[in-house]
Amino acid sequence: MRRPFVFINSAVSLDGKISNERREQVKISSPEDFAVVDKLRAESDAILVGIGTVLSDDPKLTVKNPDLREERVRQGLPPNPVRVVADSLARTPLNAQVLNSDARTVIAVSERAEGERIEKLKEKAEIVVAGKNRVDLKALMEYLWDAGIRKLMVEGGSEINYTFIKEGLVDEIRVFYSGIVIGGAKAPTLVSGKSFDVPVKFKIKSCEILGNGVAVVWSLR
Amino acid sequence: MRRPFVFINSAVSLDGKISNERREQVKISSPEDFAVVDKLRAESDAILVGIGTVLSDDPKLTVKNPDLREERVRQGLPPNPVRVVADSLARTPLNAQVLNSDARTVIAVSERAEGERIEKLKEKAEIVVAGKNRVDLKALMEYLWDAGIRKLMVEGGSEINYTFIKEGLVDEIRVFYSGIVIGGAKAPTLVSGKSFDVPVKFKIKSCEILGNGVAVVWSLR
Repeated sequence: MRRPFVFINSAVSLDGKISNERREQVKISSPEDFAVVDKLRAESDAILVGIGTVLSDDPKLTVKNPDLREERVRQGLPPNPVRVVADSLARTPLNAQVLNSDARTVIAVSERAEGERIEKLKEKAEIVVAGKNRVDLKALMEYLWDAGIRKLMVEGGSEINYTFIKEGLVDEIRVFYSGIVIGGAKAPTLVSGKSFDVPVKFKIKSCEILGNGVAVVWSLR
Repeated sequence: MRRPFVFINSAVSLDGKISNERREQVKISSPEDFAVVDKLRAESDAILVGIGTVLSDDPKLTVKNPDLREERVRQGLPPNPVRVVADSLARTPLNAQVLNSDARTVIAVSERAEGERIEKLKEKAEIVVAGKNRVDLKALMEYLWDAGIRKLMVEGGSEINYTFIKEGLVDEIRVFYSGIVIGGAKAPTLVSGKSFDVPVKFKIKSCEILGNGVAVVWSLR
């Protein structure tokens, strides 16, 4: 199977949470980590999130630093990477920031998505139908490869991270563990879904103190 | 309030879990981390766990390396630190390994614990009644201080970690993030309970690659 290099990038509290049990956005990153994330975005061909993240955080998924955008343009690239949303039921709101004109956007939906919703989204994004009930990530990866995407950054949330790992589509996980405890048995963590029968092994590649946290890179064994 | 220096020590998967959603014991530590944990135990005056950990893992909570035990004896200490179980309802099984003769054991119960259970446990451990419905950790900390405990290692699980942090009783958290993904929205993490309204801040003190993971020390700001 031909697919892009896929890495998950996420900031978590020291106890592994990506937000609190009320699903509110919690300030987890430090400015130092934020700069690293911006650079990782600029170096990627596309950035993918699940629909949950679009609905809860409404991210722009663009490169914030103008120098990094200019550098991309100098290399003959668009200023921002392609944005991809895994959105089985085509629930992306039409006023979502991910649909603004800053970058090209691909919405991957399943066959279950309503035709009417798809038509409306088509005015603002490229629609890919892949998978019967849920987005078929493997088919999506092939689609992205054929569209020239060689490096894909997955920015969460927990559910999409889980599905990517379960499907064996992750080459690297970059985690910024931040010096806060969020707590909560029901707070979403880096990887939700079901527990794996056998834990998935990754290899430690590097760790570095960054601001008030630790940036760790794990690669597939 | 006079209380021992309290540190939490735990090994977690890279996604922050201490076991899977079926609460099974999962191999998380690496041999390198295990040696560090053994040394931390040997340097502590007491080791505390919650009753959940006793029921699910049945740990001995003793120092494994004979050299470390001998070193303690040379210093005029007992070979193993005191073992403490926070056990509101006195549910510690009479055949629990934590009640074996390797070390002194303190079982902290609440006033809700049945007299009969307490009587039976008294044959094998020292019983402290502290708190009405749940163990009052602050009262327990004072008791331990008065018993000469100056350094207390808390070895989980998620619920007791949560209560210690909520009560403001934690000076340091030592986490070994291991190169495995356990996954699962319902798997227990380093800190469960409820999410804190305002995340509790810790300061990064050190990080070090150890075997196939990262050992990180966080201290209270």
